[in-house]
Amino acid sequence: MKDATSIEIDEVVQKAQDAFLVFRHTSGKDKANLLRKIAEEIEAIGDELITTASRESNLPEARIIGERGRTTGQLRLFASLLEEGSWVEASIDTAQPDRQPAPKPDIRKMLIPLGVVAVFGASNFPLAFSTAGGDTASALASGCSVIVKAHPAHPQTSELVARAIWKALESANLPREIFGHIYGKSADVGKNLVLHHAVKAVAFTGSFHGGKALFDLANQRKTPIPVFAEMGSINPTFFLPTALKNKAENLANQFAGSITLGGGQFCTKPGVLIGIDNSDLDSFIKHLSYQITQSKPAPMLYEGIAYSYDYQRQILSAQNGVKLEATAESSAEKGQGIPTLTSVYAQEFLKNPTLHEEVFGAFALIVKCRHRGEMEQVAQSLSGQLTATLIGEKDELLTHRELIHVLKEIVGRVIINGVPTGVEVCYSMHHGGTFPATTDSRFTSVGVDAIKRFVRPICFQNFPLELLPDELQEGNPLNIWRLINGNLSKA
Amino acid sequence: MKDATSIEIDEVVQKAQDAFLVFRHTSGKDKANLLRKIAEEIEAIGDELITTASRESNLPEARIIGERGRTTGQLRLFASLLEEGSWVEASIDTAQPDRQPAPKPDIRKMLIPLGVVAVFGASNFPLAFSTAGGDTASALASGCSVIVKAHPAHPQTSELVARAIWKALESANLPREIFGHIYGKSADVGKNLVLHHAVKAVAFTGSFHGGKALFDLANQRKTPIPVFAEMGSINPTFFLPTALKNKAENLANQFAGSITLGGGQFCTKPGVLIGIDNSDLDSFIKHLSYQITQSKPAPMLYEGIAYSYDYQRQILSAQNGVKLEATAESSAEKGQGIPTLTSVYAQEFLKNPTLHEEVFGAFALIVKCRHRGEMEQVAQSLSGQLTATLIGEKDELLTHRELIHVLKEIVGRVIINGVPTGVEVCYSMHHGGTFPATTDSRFTSVGVDAIKRFVRPICFQNFPLELLPDELQEGNPLNIWRLINGNLSKA
Repeated sequence: MKDATSIEIDEVVQKAQDAFLVFRHTSGKDKANLLRKIAEEIEAIGDELITTASRESNLPEARIIGERGRTTGQLRLFASLLEEGSWVEASIDTAQPDRQPAPKPDIRKMLIPLGVVAVFGASNFPLAFSTAGGDTASALASGCSVIVKAHPAHPQTSELVARAIWKALESANLPREIFGHIYGKSADVGKNLVLHHAVKAVAFTGSFHGGKALFDLANQRKTPIPVFAEMGSINPTFFLPTALKNKAENLANQFAGSITLGGGQFCTKPGVLIGIDNSDLDSFIKHLSYQITQSKPAPMLYEGIAYSYDYQRQILSAQNGVKLEATAESSAEKGQGIPTLTSVYAQEFLKNPTLHEEVFGAFALIVKCRHRGEMEQVAQSLSGQLTATLIGEKDELLTHRELIHVLKEIVGRVIINGVPTGVEVCYSMHHGGTFPATTDSRFTSVGVDAIKRFVRPICFQNFPLELLPDELQEGNPLNIWRLINGNLSKA
Repeated sequence: MKDATSIEIDEVVQKAQDAFLVFRHTSGKDKANLLRKIAEEIEAIGDELITTASRESNLPEARIIGERGRTTGQLRLFASLLEEGSWVEASIDTAQPDRQPAPKPDIRKMLIPLGVVAVFGASNFPLAFSTAGGDTASALASGCSVIVKAHPAHPQTSELVARAIWKALESANLPREIFGHIYGKSADVGKNLVLHHAVKAVAFTGSFHGGKALFDLANQRKTPIPVFAEMGSINPTFFLPTALKNKAENLANQFAGSITLGGGQFCTKPGVLIGIDNSDLDSFIKHLSYQITQSKPAPMLYEGIAYSYDYQRQILSAQNGVKLEATAESSAEKGQGIPTLTSVYAQEFLKNPTLHEEVFGAFALIVKCRHRGEMEQVAQSLSGQLTATLIGEKDELLTHRELIHVLKEIVGRVIINGVPTGVEVCYSMHHGGTFPATTDSRFTSVGVDAIKRFVRPICFQNFPLELLPDELQEGNPLNIWRLINGNLSKA
């Protein structure tokens, strides 16, 4: 696949903008129909999608099958959201013509789509966060046109899915140009896309380096636009003492699974495990080390990522005070990542920012604290994270409220007695976190509220009914929840 | 009042951050109590506030009295919002431990405050958008600490209001440091405030130059933060032909009032009036010119603004093709703004970006179009605006749907058969608009939803009930609207 030229990018964005002018008027029901058709067309590709995505991403077919289910599930969840319809946050303040000292006009408000959205496919989710992934699904659901820049690691997979989207658009009688699809290995392709004047928002999942570069570019435009970049995390996990005492081995098994899942290539992989230095932590480390030695080196998503992993793994391991606890015993082939467990004392962790950096792959660092106060210091020292996890027995959790409050200030999701991997796609999910985990802590890239990234409110004052959209009509023809003078109602 | 030094700014922000750690746990009811007490303390200042604000802003006392009502009204509206409580968008997805292939954990989400918010007082609303104005009220309502940088044009007014806030904090038994108040004529004061690491968001109302500078600074921080800058607008108003034919004189009187209201110093002042060049438009211009000649030069907010107004007025009037239609006949004293009406043909307007710039003061430009197509071209040529207005008889409005759609893409509020001045503080208000009207089209600075600027979602996964906030408890003790598995309910 050839890199899109700036002329090609201009053409695809202009067409998407023209198509948006039609798509913005499409009803929720018709957009839901489109999303359902996309899901069906993706399923209709059949085994070819599974084998292609598995071959391009080096992920096992079973994982890809699961990811396809997640992808079509997301599309159908947004379809349900559109069919229900209340997501537009319709609000009506009725007129009070006799109010003193001035009459109150009729004022109505709802959310409308922004325009053309640029989506950057992620390498680690060739289906669920790529061509028809969560970003595309939520942007199309909002009524925006979408241009996907396929991730160079899986161009054939992206092409198969792009064709499915075009088929769905055709059978839904919507302009094909609502969806555009471009390729690019050069950073210039993404740059030209983000700088195009008709692009109104950007969604990205990937490295801090990549996400921050797009954020800076977007803010330097003549008209700045929002960038929703999810840039990863070390997902700190705090192990409280009694839990470690009671179930060190079980916890070790559970976390070994989370650390090595998908070759450790999840943005929610628990990268830093914090505990108080005692014999229970030693026991946990021993069991976890055993699991890591027995784990198999997994082929990574692409060669560049395998190289980066090995490089970062060595940099981290070579830091002052870092002890290598375990690596997988099986020998690794080229392109495979070697699961690795290290440890360090909190005093070193607190001093050394390099130890706070994400290592993307099956790598974890145990931070040994001398006492509870030092554990809280570690929490205080962390930058923005997608998640934080606490492992504890109930009684000790209740005496660590302050630790939870510290973590709430920096993360998007706090998990108790679970693992951070496995991000549920649902109404209450928030997959975000403060900078540098994301560029905008107010929005989520997973779950229903992801749609809110691509909309803005519009207010209609003193409009004749004939000119109001269905969502704001008298009699509530769509039967949605609306605020009427501040009171939620379906009236 | 002396400019705050960087050491003083650091101290006030650090104290506000410490106070935030207490304030974030304050219940909605207690925050409502605080807001109501602030309103009472402002009222308790009595006449001194009115005379001081009037003297410092050169605005008539009647206007200041009205603005005080708006200010206390805003505080009480946010108090009601907090008492009702549903604004936190609580959402609960219940666990499904038996779900296949993986169990679904219990996931709950709600909005929490960001931290310390920096508010820049606006010159044109010495009460309603200054020390205890809409930005402060919404930020305190969210549970954020607030540092106000008083506008240098009304320091005494700001000081009186700041003292009222401190009194209210004291009587509400909350830390005084939740609210900080600094002065600064130098741009360095605002710069140091925005760059302080503990500041988490910025609210600003003022010039494009000022707002954009803060936006750029905030994005260049090591940890970027959101800036909600409302930077004004030319608020285009489109006059359709039949309406002009039927009521040229009435419309002229109505718009003369809106243009000259408060010396034209409103961000929603209608600055550009667009019509089709015919005898009805001539009649409208004649009547409007008459009103402008009869209007009185008004003392402007401060000397710098009077100077700017006169400068911009002359720059605009000197542009190619611009005709001076009318100025106030009464002679103006120093510091007063001379109401001025100009006109230009659309062909010139379309060519000359200077004619698209806001002139802050009682100035308006009539754009004469040869035909309807040219009127639509003018609409297409506009950059982001707070508002757009259409004046038309019902039949002609229905045949101008496309014009409305064009305007919807760039503005935050569309008004039909009204004036853009007079921004209603209510649930359905959106006082925003696309860049350069604001730096973030997704948020409003007026109305209940202004609170959403200062919060972000937090997600709790698998939490024991003892550790969940009241908003997410079983049995819904606060009796708020919540999403339960995607369904709105008070259960």
